[in-house]
Amino acid sequence: MVFMRFRPRIFSPSLFGPSKPRTPTLAASPPAAAAARRRIVSMASSTTASEDALRRALAERQAAVDAQAEAVRALKAAGAAAAKAEVDAAVEALKALKVEAGAAARRLQAAVGASGGGGGAAREEMRQAVVNTLERKLFYIPSFKIYRGVAGLYDYGPPGCAVKANVLAFWRQHFVLEENMLEVDCPCVTPEVVLKASGHVEKFTDLMVKDEKTGTCYRADHLLKDHCKEKLEKDLTLSPEKAAELKHVLAVLDDLSADELGAKIKEYGIVAPDTKNPLSDPYPFNLMFQTSIGPTGLNVGYMRPETAQGIFVNFKDLYYYNGQKLPFAAAQIGQAFRNEISPRQGLLRVREFTLAEIEHFVDPEDKSHPKFVDVTDLEFLMFPRELQLSGESAKLVKLGEAVSKGTVNNETLGYFIGRVYLFLTRLGIDKNRLRFRQHLPNEMAHYAADCWDAEIECSYGWIECVGIADRSAYDLRAHSDKSGVPLVAHEKFSKPREVEKLVIVPSKKDLGLAFKGNQKMVVEALEAMSEKEAMDMKAALESKGETNFQVCTLGKDVVITKKMVSISMEKKLEHQRVFTPSVIEPSFGIGRIIYCLFEHSFYTRPSKSEEEQLNVFRFPPIVAPIKCTVFPLVKNQEFDDAAKVIDKALTTAGISHIIDTTAISIGRRYARTDEIGVPFAVTVDSATSVTIRERDSKEQIRVGIDEVASVVKQLTDGQSTWADVSFKYPSHIGPQDCLVSSIA
Amino acid sequence: MVFMRFRPRIFSPSLFGPSKPRTPTLAASPPAAAAARRRIVSMASSTTASEDALRRALAERQAAVDAQAEAVRALKAAGAAAAKAEVDAAVEALKALKVEAGAAARRLQAAVGASGGGGGAAREEMRQAVVNTLERKLFYIPSFKIYRGVAGLYDYGPPGCAVKANVLAFWRQHFVLEENMLEVDCPCVTPEVVLKASGHVEKFTDLMVKDEKTGTCYRADHLLKDHCKEKLEKDLTLSPEKAAELKHVLAVLDDLSADELGAKIKEYGIVAPDTKNPLSDPYPFNLMFQTSIGPTGLNVGYMRPETAQGIFVNFKDLYYYNGQKLPFAAAQIGQAFRNEISPRQGLLRVREFTLAEIEHFVDPEDKSHPKFVDVTDLEFLMFPRELQLSGESAKLVKLGEAVSKGTVNNETLGYFIGRVYLFLTRLGIDKNRLRFRQHLPNEMAHYAADCWDAEIECSYGWIECVGIADRSAYDLRAHSDKSGVPLVAHEKFSKPREVEKLVIVPSKKDLGLAFKGNQKMVVEALEAMSEKEAMDMKAALESKGETNFQVCTLGKDVVITKKMVSISMEKKLEHQRVFTPSVIEPSFGIGRIIYCLFEHSFYTRPSKSEEEQLNVFRFPPIVAPIKCTVFPLVKNQEFDDAAKVIDKALTTAGISHIIDTTAISIGRRYARTDEIGVPFAVTVDSATSVTIRERDSKEQIRVGIDEVASVVKQLTDGQSTWADVSFKYPSHIGPQDCLVSSIA
Repeated sequence: MVFMRFRPRIFSPSLFGPSKPRTPTLAASPPAAAAARRRIVSMASSTTASEDALRRALAERQAAVDAQAEAVRALKAAGAAAAKAEVDAAVEALKALKVEAGAAARRLQAAVGASGGGGGAAREEMRQAVVNTLERKLFYIPSFKIYRGVAGLYDYGPPGCAVKANVLAFWRQHFVLEENMLEVDCPCVTPEVVLKASGHVEKFTDLMVKDEKTGTCYRADHLLKDHCKEKLEKDLTLSPEKAAELKHVLAVLDDLSADELGAKIKEYGIVAPDTKNPLSDPYPFNLMFQTSIGPTGLNVGYMRPETAQGIFVNFKDLYYYNGQKLPFAAAQIGQAFRNEISPRQGLLRVREFTLAEIEHFVDPEDKSHPKFVDVTDLEFLMFPRELQLSGESAKLVKLGEAVSKGTVNNETLGYFIGRVYLFLTRLGIDKNRLRFRQHLPNEMAHYAADCWDAEIECSYGWIECVGIADRSAYDLRAHSDKSGVPLVAHEKFSKPREVEKLVIVPSKKDLGLAFKGNQKMVVEALEAMSEKEAMDMKAALESKGETNFQVCTLGKDVVITKKMVSISMEKKLEHQRVFTPSVIEPSFGIGRIIYCLFEHSFYTRPSKSEEEQLNVFRFPPIVAPIKCTVFPLVKNQEFDDAAKVIDKALTTAGISHIIDTTAISIGRRYARTDEIGVPFAVTVDSATSVTIRERDSKEQIRVGIDEVASVVKQLTDGQSTWADVSFKYPSHIGPQDCLVSSIA
Repeated sequence: MVFMRFRPRIFSPSLFGPSKPRTPTLAASPPAAAAARRRIVSMASSTTASEDALRRALAERQAAVDAQAEAVRALKAAGAAAAKAEVDAAVEALKALKVEAGAAARRLQAAVGASGGGGGAAREEMRQAVVNTLERKLFYIPSFKIYRGVAGLYDYGPPGCAVKANVLAFWRQHFVLEENMLEVDCPCVTPEVVLKASGHVEKFTDLMVKDEKTGTCYRADHLLKDHCKEKLEKDLTLSPEKAAELKHVLAVLDDLSADELGAKIKEYGIVAPDTKNPLSDPYPFNLMFQTSIGPTGLNVGYMRPETAQGIFVNFKDLYYYNGQKLPFAAAQIGQAFRNEISPRQGLLRVREFTLAEIEHFVDPEDKSHPKFVDVTDLEFLMFPRELQLSGESAKLVKLGEAVSKGTVNNETLGYFIGRVYLFLTRLGIDKNRLRFRQHLPNEMAHYAADCWDAEIECSYGWIECVGIADRSAYDLRAHSDKSGVPLVAHEKFSKPREVEKLVIVPSKKDLGLAFKGNQKMVVEALEAMSEKEAMDMKAALESKGETNFQVCTLGKDVVITKKMVSISMEKKLEHQRVFTPSVIEPSFGIGRIIYCLFEHSFYTRPSKSEEEQLNVFRFPPIVAPIKCTVFPLVKNQEFDDAAKVIDKALTTAGISHIIDTTAISIGRRYARTDEIGVPFAVTVDSATSVTIRERDSKEQIRVGIDEVASVVKQLTDGQSTWADVSFKYPSHIGPQDCLVSSIA
């Protein structure tokens, strides 16, 4: 998963991920890239120019005020020598200048407020409304609440758990089943050797500082970020130059080394937020939960930080299982763990989370995809590198064009981008708040061919929810090297191919005589020559009989004579090609997707009496935690019996439902059901037929009791739409609706 | 989960669980219970009597041989004094006795072999056949195999993963949906305080010994068990008394304290199996994987050993979510972890596993269940306490009778036993190899009302796969006490009830004068009196003016006079009852169920040519990893196009399938599909219709191409049986079958 293992596997920054490359880039960061990344990091970028102008204007006004104040003081100091009228005029002018400066300050404050938070207050309010509903309805619960909880750990309560199960079931249907993927299920407990090979043991770290007196830990970049943001938002006296510097720091925050972070913290005088104590220098903290496997205490293990490694180490078996054919994909859904230093952002940054990852193995020489045609016409917001670098916004692009123009590296990567788009929008993610952002060159590892993140906009900004990366052969090679087991694929040629191969045969006897103890280094250097180097040497030896040759391991040149080495190109017949497959990896942060889905699905509408706002989640049926509720209109035996018949039919059909027999008004029961996003409400108001109400339109149809289950099943399976069934069944006008609706 | 958390929560032995109570029972174990438990521990119990007789017979024969040998030696020593004829006769007699002893030894060996392994060789062979197929077909894979694996960790490969997903989906349908349970999803990382309250930190341990030189760790009970078993099976010279002793040790193995285990290990001279080095004394090793939450290293956490605690700590919220009504059930599916000292038994004893647990909260005064009538007529193998204690076998019992006779404690517990039976048998568990075994009194915690295990017989013996326990109020009380948050339910009375309440009012002034510094202890002791004690004291004070009173905390009696305390019964009006609900807990070890299902579903049948045995898994459609395969009979465009149409229809219908276009015979393709338990094979042999073959009967029907998906869906959804569809569609006789079948 890209955003979860960015550091160890790519060693480059991820905006919303924990990434922090260790190469010093603060000074070296090229202005264009820095400006572009600033665009992304802060939503303020497009207003940067006007904000700068406002800061400059404020500084000028303030300077004018200061100068005029000085003038007034000078006049007053002159005493009687100054005419009263002159003094009065100067004071009036000072007042006017102060009014102007005040206005300039307010304009700047407004600009900074709007850009910094992006309509911060409204977002915050909206988030509070969603989160309140989610917590009250037990979509999620802070874990171990009765023991005052643990930061970064959350439970899914009943409706949240059902939404999660539905999202995962749909993921299996949409990816695993549709693409015939090989799903595996590996343990969370992972021995150290695996995570050494993957790089996590060495590099899966965040930089931490400690309160030097209390020992409280903080993420170093968080403190620096908070400092810069607060300065930018609240200190109106900041010079445009200083503001630009702070913004630059924010833009390159993820790229700062420990030393650079430490230097900035010292330079800005940042102290521990709670105690104002001085802070330690930043040092790396590994984010994996460590444990010990078995009783000896000698075998270090970790809770996996991603599920992908379990797939890579099984490549060989899976390749054989697939009949030794490429391409194929393996998939895994499971828990992953990250011991965050100080989790923030609620459900978006947690210490344990569910990942769904796909590793699609493909011949690096053929990344076409037979089903790419199915997605070429999709059009959605893409945010390629060029747009980011030129400071523009994401644009609607046709996927087919993005691949044919080379914006997206290859068809397979493009195919998965399209499939991810379909997956997210079918779940109910708003397509206008979903974009695919390409990684900038400095975000990607040298080996990666191309990376795109599906980012979803929510009240926290644009959140990376799915990473789709062409990681080339990196992961399989790392495990091949460490384990000694070749993780390769074979292409058998239908007929053997003739290939020319470079053959270098050092004469150890002659080299030994000439170089004695250094012979080994010379031999290795000769054998390591590229084809061009070898051919140049061959030509030199043939023309001159000897040549100078640099042996790096000796740190000097040596003279090679003709008899010391024989160099030739030989023709050989090859029956197969052996290669390490490329990996294309779509990796889904399920919890983040679900949280964004909650925000995108939430809305409020006035109650009938318009006295209060009612909360609604407009979950599509496949996501809805409960597919329908059954309400006997009033309490009587006849309706109860009918409800029981419906209950049984719904259970048999496998439709999750609730029977609500509480003696409250049908309107309040509808509101209760809307609040957890139940799409269909069945009201039993006769012994033979019922009404079915659709949540968002509030329209009702009348259906016979024996048909209820099958109608609801069609609606929730996606076989029928509400339009289909309202065409087929008579619409029902509730007594309250008669005033405003005409009979259909 | 009972078998997974037995030790901390019940502190008593579980056969297949890790349990080992810490009370010394070796000496005290009552013979009847020991005999009964021996029955269960070893399958040899029923042959114990004849085995004893054989040992005795062998010992007698051996004694006779020894005596005769002595006689021969004496005769020979006498030299010429003994007549040659006499010596010859004695030697002949010795030979005859040796033959008899040999025969007796063989009879004993046969008896021991048969009883010890219970047809050991055949079981072992059967297990090997299943396990070979499972590993070859990637149902499971030893985890991290390329790094030589980690004991006790396994991956599910593609078919295994699909079986697991299907089992869990059916579990959700059968329990969560059918019973409207509140499903939750809590993290695996758990703070120490929660597991201190549950008892795991203190008591979730196994006894371990170390090789004193190499430090290698062993489970102490395993070494003692192996020693006893080997002696019993291989040492034919064992006296019946010694054999009985070893068997007794095996029977009480789970009950032995560290000291007792250590003493036996010393007594029997048991050494480290690999090195023959001496062993340390046994000491407890906590089986939880420990870790640290957050960066400070100060917050200890553990990977949860069961999922139940996540439900208990959420009781209050869930109770409110359920409208403050009882009964209700919460459920959770998730990973649990146990750091086994030395995992054995393949998939049955692993370090990480999936649990599915239900906590059904119920009023302790009303454990009836409205749906119990639905299961009363179920009849299956039950193994109540009495049968175990009298050495009998499990018997077919009607569930309704078991509850009405009080064998099963209450209706709710009975209801869940019935539902578990239905769940397991619908998955494909053989009902003749499934029994419900009641815990013996010494296996249960003092607070538990009743416990039953669903045990499934496989090649490892009877394996506990589901625990169904009435745990009374223990768990909620433990968390109430530790957290200070009352986890209780309320019953509002329709009209207030008058209750008599004991009121004890100590006069602190008088007590203070009399007892000075001890006053507090006396007050507490007075207030803690039961109703009877208080009423007795009241009577004594009224008649005699004073009375002796034992204060335990002071370790002595004190004299209480009339003015020191007032005791009365007062009538009060109560509006509600506040109580801690009882918990009835069905807890499923998903991996164990799946492994047993693999064994129960496996069979072999000869190939057409009868040259080889073909492997088949007879999974029911709901469990089968792939629901159907599609085989174009020969490679041509027409058939390929038809296969594509079917592919699309199956995908849309959500049916997992494989298209197999390999150019091998249809028979071999069928065999390949049988080996992973695919129930239906679709063969495309025309452009308009296909055949569908049922795996176990090998019968085929002919179905139009546009109907294939709906027919397979009906079959796999359980809406139609094979009999239904073979009645509806024409049967198809393959060319190979013509010779042996007549046209239907």
